[in-house]
Amino acid sequence: MQFSETHFVGVDVGGTKVAAGLVDSGGRITRQTRTPMVATDAVAGLAAVTSAIEAVYSAADLSPQLKSSISGIGVCAPGPLNPQTGVVINPPNLPCWRNFPLAAEIAKVYRLPVRVDNDGNAAALAEALWGAGRGYRSVFYATIGTGIGSGIIFDGRIYHGRTGAAAEGGHMSIDYRGPRCGCGKLGCIEALASGPAIARRASEQIAAGRPSSILQHAGGQVDGISSEIVGQAYRAGDPLAKEVLQETAMYLTVWLGNIVDLLEPDVMILGGGAASLLQPFFEEIRDLLPRWCVNSRCQDIPLLAAHYGADAGIAGGAALCLEVTATE
Amino acid sequence: MQFSETHFVGVDVGGTKVAAGLVDSGGRITRQTRTPMVATDAVAGLAAVTSAIEAVYSAADLSPQLKSSISGIGVCAPGPLNPQTGVVINPPNLPCWRNFPLAAEIAKVYRLPVRVDNDGNAAALAEALWGAGRGYRSVFYATIGTGIGSGIIFDGRIYHGRTGAAAEGGHMSIDYRGPRCGCGKLGCIEALASGPAIARRASEQIAAGRPSSILQHAGGQVDGISSEIVGQAYRAGDPLAKEVLQETAMYLTVWLGNIVDLLEPDVMILGGGAASLLQPFFEEIRDLLPRWCVNSRCQDIPLLAAHYGADAGIAGGAALCLEVTATE
Repeated sequence: MQFSETHFVGVDVGGTKVAAGLVDSGGRITRQTRTPMVATDAVAGLAAVTSAIEAVYSAADLSPQLKSSISGIGVCAPGPLNPQTGVVINPPNLPCWRNFPLAAEIAKVYRLPVRVDNDGNAAALAEALWGAGRGYRSVFYATIGTGIGSGIIFDGRIYHGRTGAAAEGGHMSIDYRGPRCGCGKLGCIEALASGPAIARRASEQIAAGRPSSILQHAGGQVDGISSEIVGQAYRAGDPLAKEVLQETAMYLTVWLGNIVDLLEPDVMILGGGAASLLQPFFEEIRDLLPRWCVNSRCQDIPLLAAHYGADAGIAGGAALCLEVTATE
Repeated sequence: MQFSETHFVGVDVGGTKVAAGLVDSGGRITRQTRTPMVATDAVAGLAAVTSAIEAVYSAADLSPQLKSSISGIGVCAPGPLNPQTGVVINPPNLPCWRNFPLAAEIAKVYRLPVRVDNDGNAAALAEALWGAGRGYRSVFYATIGTGIGSGIIFDGRIYHGRTGAAAEGGHMSIDYRGPRCGCGKLGCIEALASGPAIARRASEQIAAGRPSSILQHAGGQVDGISSEIVGQAYRAGDPLAKEVLQETAMYLTVWLGNIVDLLEPDVMILGGGAASLLQPFFEEIRDLLPRWCVNSRCQDIPLLAAHYGADAGIAGGAALCLEVTATE
């Protein structure tokens, strides 16, 4: 390992845990740690973050040279937040922080440049710099899991919009008469194609009497049906599971067709747990896209699986440090 | 008038007519001409365009100084086209041109820089430089007429996407089970809120027996119902006309909510004939927006009526000449 190389600490702050890791300038992650998020108050929340960073610094095999090669800290935090100032505004799932200057507080402790952004934006940047989006000028990235987050990268920079609240692609509605999303809107792609939406649609069919092995995979409990269970049943050849995933792929096609018609990015990248389940349907999405897109060259836009998995937040945090050095 | 000032010729090429005008560097249009578009073959199509430009040059009151102050020609042409090379690819409503180097052919005649782009992009740039979008860094513009075109401007430059086919906002679907659009997709905002869509929805209600004065305004002919007729009936107090326009405003709100959630622009501008009809409902769209947008500050984004009307194509063409001088 070359110690002249720069390293970054990437931190992923969630509602229940903090993950941190050391990331080199090629996007390789080493020395990952995961600690619980303690969010009783603002100070405890900050202490949970700094102790995760501390755990990376104090890794037994971290030489002084490697330590001194760390040139920045980047943090994925729950929004809404101000990416310019690093202030966390009022995250619903981390109520301990209200207008909390997270970047400034961490910078005080480590005397390093600190960047803060939301997970969709940060993970999109990591994919653009080091992952599936490498070499493409404009990248649309979405992570399909419990929710659907997204990020837009133009020329190595995050597209933030007016106040940093852009790229909420998961809350674009493709059905104004559709199911209600957690956000209050109707027919958001998150309400149709996220992990919980996949599980809900399968459960509804089963509750309506559709025979399927999904229920056995869930131990006989309708409540036990998750998108992972649907995926298991699909791999075991269950027709209903296939139908539910195919329908999900159709919803994603409508949505991606809209994205292409508005943004015509150079590449589209899907990450997150539910996206892995849906990977067998990527070809189908590509085939179906021209029906849901006026762009006659839409099929020339690659649809790729994300490079980073559960560690996307750590990579994303680290990527934010490299955005700092980009030219305006 | 200062003759040291630069002027541009803006040209708007449609399927049936060519409009051209002289535009000063403040976006003021003088000496407009309108001539028929002759599109029997590529050469005749080009001749129709150059004769429209010629008509501007030969305006009786155009002094030699003013003529020599013309520093560029910009053309709005039907897409698909390549805005980088000025080649018109294969426009459905101008089949005379197939991979036709429109910019290069005009430049040969006038020995001036020539820019070509589609009307949505060009009109968006004119609004951003000189119209309702002046002073805003990011502008989302849409023109609601026979179709719905759009344009996105970031820092005075048109956002083109991968091949120049981005900003087809009119073909974003908000209802994947909705009415079929001319483009083939279902539930495009164009199929729900364009002028013909407004007329169609009113006609359907009347055909179903809904009493309304719309029919009288249309001379008793269901076929005679247009969005303008619906607008007339609304202004005369017709309840069905009001309902149809209100429903249109709701569709536009869903769509603009999606635009804000993805792009969070600094300003949104609506132009075109049907947008004028809908101006009494702009306040309603603003009030309804938070229901269709996760962005908590969506109401801080101004929703404005376009500055340019039927002359948006001429202004847009001229604006393209100023984009040339922008820094990359």
